[in-house]
Amino acid sequence: MFVSDFGLGNEWVGLCHSVMAGIAPECPIIDLSHLIRPLEVVSGALLLADSVPYIREDAVILGVVEPNVGKDREIAVETASGRCLVGPDNGLLSLAWEVSGGIRTAVEITSTDIMRPIHAESFRAPDTFCPATAHLASGTPIERLGDIIDPASLAVVALAEPEVEPGRICCEVIDFNRFGNVQLNVRPGDLVAAGLEGAKRLRVEAVSGAVEADRGSTYADFAAGEYGVLFDPRGWLTIVRGNPASALDGLGLALASPVWLTAPDGSA
Amino acid sequence: MFVSDFGLGNEWVGLCHSVMAGIAPECPIIDLSHLIRPLEVVSGALLLADSVPYIREDAVILGVVEPNVGKDREIAVETASGRCLVGPDNGLLSLAWEVSGGIRTAVEITSTDIMRPIHAESFRAPDTFCPATAHLASGTPIERLGDIIDPASLAVVALAEPEVEPGRICCEVIDFNRFGNVQLNVRPGDLVAAGLEGAKRLRVEAVSGAVEADRGSTYADFAAGEYGVLFDPRGWLTIVRGNPASALDGLGLALASPVWLTAPDGSA
Amino acid sequence: MFVSDFGLGNEWVGLCHSVMAGIAPECPIIDLSHLIRPLEVVSGALLLADSVPYIREDAVILGVVEPNVGKDREIAVETASGRCLVGPDNGLLSLAWEVSGGIRTAVEITSTDIMRPIHAESFRAPDTFCPATAHLASGTPIERLGDIIDPASLAVVALAEPEVEPGRICCEVIDFNRFGNVQLNVRPGDLVAAGLEGAKRLRVEAVSGAVEADRGSTYADFAAGEYGVLFDPRGWLTIVRGNPASALDGLGLALASPVWLTAPDGSA
Repeated sequence: MFVSDFGLGNEWVGLCHSVMAGIAPECPIIDLSHLIRPLEVVSGALLLADSVPYIREDAVILGVVEPNVGKDREIAVETASGRCLVGPDNGLLSLAWEVSGGIRTAVEITSTDIMRPIHAESFRAPDTFCPATAHLASGTPIERLGDIIDPASLAVVALAEPEVEPGRICCEVIDFNRFGNVQLNVRPGDLVAAGLEGAKRLRVEAVSGAVEADRGSTYADFAAGEYGVLFDPRGWLTIVRGNPASALDGLGLALASPVWLTAPDGSA
Repeated sequence: MFVSDFGLGNEWVGLCHSVMAGIAPECPIIDLSHLIRPLEVVSGALLLADSVPYIREDAVILGVVEPNVGKDREIAVETASGRCLVGPDNGLLSLAWEVSGGIRTAVEITSTDIMRPIHAESFRAPDTFCPATAHLASGTPIERLGDIIDPASLAVVALAEPEVEPGRICCEVIDFNRFGNVQLNVRPGDLVAAGLEGAKRLRVEAVSGAVEADRGSTYADFAAGEYGVLFDPRGWLTIVRGNPASALDGLGLALASPVWLTAPDGSA
Repeated sequence: MFVSDFGLGNEWVGLCHSVMAGIAPECPIIDLSHLIRPLEVVSGALLLADSVPYIREDAVILGVVEPNVGKDREIAVETASGRCLVGPDNGLLSLAWEVSGGIRTAVEITSTDIMRPIHAESFRAPDTFCPATAHLASGTPIERLGDIIDPASLAVVALAEPEVEPGRICCEVIDFNRFGNVQLNVRPGDLVAAGLEGAKRLRVEAVSGAVEADRGSTYADFAAGEYGVLFDPRGWLTIVRGNPASALDGLGLALASPVWLTAPDGSA
C-alpha cells in the first residue's frame, strides 16, 4: 500500500514499484494515491489514517511526503495491532499509528543489508524506504531494518481543531475533490457538542457569502444546484451540491478557508 | 478490469484495489480508466463497450460511474458470452452487455455473505461492488451474489444518433483527448448511408467556422496543422490535425458540440 | 516496465495491460509513466535511459511515444547487457540501449505468430508491441518476433548539448515537475569543463531576469523562496527553490527556454 506526493507526471512511482517488485515479487503493490498535495504532510497523514479500515492488517503501508528529504530520519514502525508503516519521521505516519493502537516498535532504517547504495540524495525513497517496505512485506522482522528508536522521539502532526460553541462551529477546509465537494475538519462529535446534530438544515457561511444546506446521507439526496451537508466516506462533514454544481466554486473556498456553521435563524 | 470516474486525486481507487486484493489475491486487477468525465454515465458506457474486444472473456468488468450512489440498485450481470459485469443499475453496463450478446442472468447484490458492512453510504463501492467483483473473479456463481432480477427491468442508456441524409451528416462531439483529437458519434455505416464513404475529403463545419479535412487511416497521414478525419481505434469518426496542432482548439469544440459533415463543393 | 505518452484520461494504458496480462499472466507489469509530454520522443528517450539503473535486467521495457504510428517500423532490441526493449523505430529507445552497452540483436516485429490482427491502424500497440513484450517477458527468444534488422539502420535521437566555455554555460530547459523544479541539459562534467564545479553559488540567467543560487545536494538545503541548484536524481543540474516557491514560475521558464550559468561577479 503506497501513498506519496510524487504525482504521476514523472517516473518516480514506477521506479519505486520496480525496486519493490525486484525484492519481493510475490507481494502485490497497491497505490493508494500519489497526488497528495505536494509537500502537504498533514493531508497525507489524514488520508493514511482514514484509509486504515480498508487496508489488510498484513499489508505494509509506505508513505512518502517528504519536504525535508535527506534531513529527516527514515523510519519503520510496527503498531500494537501488528501493522507496519514505513516513511519519513515528519509526522506523516503518526495519525495512522494512532488509529492502529499506537507504536509497539520503531526503528530507523540504517541497515546496509536492507538499504541500497544511495543513487541520489534528492530521491532516496527507492534506496531506503522501498527496500525496507519490500523486506517487511516478505516477512523480515522489523528489528533487522536498523536501530531501535524511542517512539517518544518521533514527530507527530497536529490537526487544526474546530472551535465549537453552543449553536456554532468555526472550522476550516481540509480537502476538496474533483466533484467540488468540500471537506471540513468537523466530526460527528463536534455537531453534537454544538447542539447542531438534530438540525435538518445548517447555515454555511464563508468569507464570500452564506448558503443554507440540508443534511443528507449520500450525494444523491440533493437536487441539482442545491447545497447540502453530509458526513463523507472518511467521516468528515462535507459541503456538497446537487450534480453537476460545485460547492467549492459556489462558495469561493480553498484549502484552509474558514467556514462557520450555525442553525438557520438561530433555530437548532 | 476496473473503470470509474473516481479520478486519481484521492484514495478511492486504491481502497477498492485493497478490498478486492484482500478477497481474491490470486486475481490481477487492471485499471481501464478512472478519469471518465465525472458522473458521465454515457461516456463510461461507451468506453466499456468499445473496450470489450481487448478484454479476456474470463475477466470480470467492474464499472462505477454513479451519480445516484445509494439510490440505484447494485447489480451483477452475466452475458450470453459468459462475461460478468458489475456496477450500478443506471445504464453504465448496458452497452457492454449488448456487444456481449445480451444478458443471461442478472442479480441485485444483496447477499450479506458477499457484501461487507457499509462503511459509508456515499462510498458504497468497496463494500458492495468490490466484494461482488472479487468473488465472481474467484469463481463464485453469480446466483450467490443476491436476488435474481428481470433483465427487462434494468436501465439502459440511449446514444445520440447522428442525423444522416444524402450528402450530409449532422452529428455531435462525444469525446476528445489530450492530443486534441475529437470523436464524433459517426460510425462507418453512417458515411455509407450519406453517400460520403468515397469522398477523399470532407467539409467539417462547426459553429465557429468550417475546414476541409482529408480522409486518412492513421494520425501520421496529415501534415503539421492540417485537418484530417479518420476512424479512431474505437471505430468513431475523429477529427484530427497534423501534430502538434489541436483540432479541438482549432474548431472551438467541446463535449456535445454539433458538427456538420458534407462533401466539399457538394461533390461527393 | 511500460512507458508511454498515452495519458491517463482514456483507456489505452488499461487495454495494453489487458492484452499483456492475457499472454503472460505470470509477469507483473509496472508503469513507469504514461504522461510523457505528448509526442515528445526525446523526453521519453531521456526518461527511459535515466531509469535504467532502477530496472531489473530481466524486465522487458516497452516504450510507446509514437507521432508516426503506423509509419515507423515496430522493433525489439536486445542489448549487450541482455536487456530487451520494445517500441517504435523513432529513436525513443536509443538512449536506453546506449546506457545498456549497445545493441546485440534488433528485429522488426513482423511474425504473425506473435502479432494480433490489427484492430485499428491508429492504435497498433495492443496488437504489435504488447504481444511482443509479453512474449519476450515469458522467455520467447527475440529472433522469434520477426526479421533481423541492421542496428545501424535504426533511428537515434540527438540531445541538445549545452555550449560550455570557461566560466559560462549556455544551456536549456529539458523538463520540469509539479514542484516547479527545472531540469537543465547540464551534467556534472559540464560544470567541470566550465570551471564552475567549485563555485558555491551560481548566477542563473533567464530571458526574464537573473537570480543567484547556492549549490546544494537535496531539496531541503534551501530556505523558503531561495533559489538553489543541485544535481537531480537523474543527474541533471536542476534549479529549485525552497518550498513552497516554484523556480519555474519565478524565472518564467518553459520547455526549451535558454538559461545561462556563470559565477556571481565573475568569481568562479
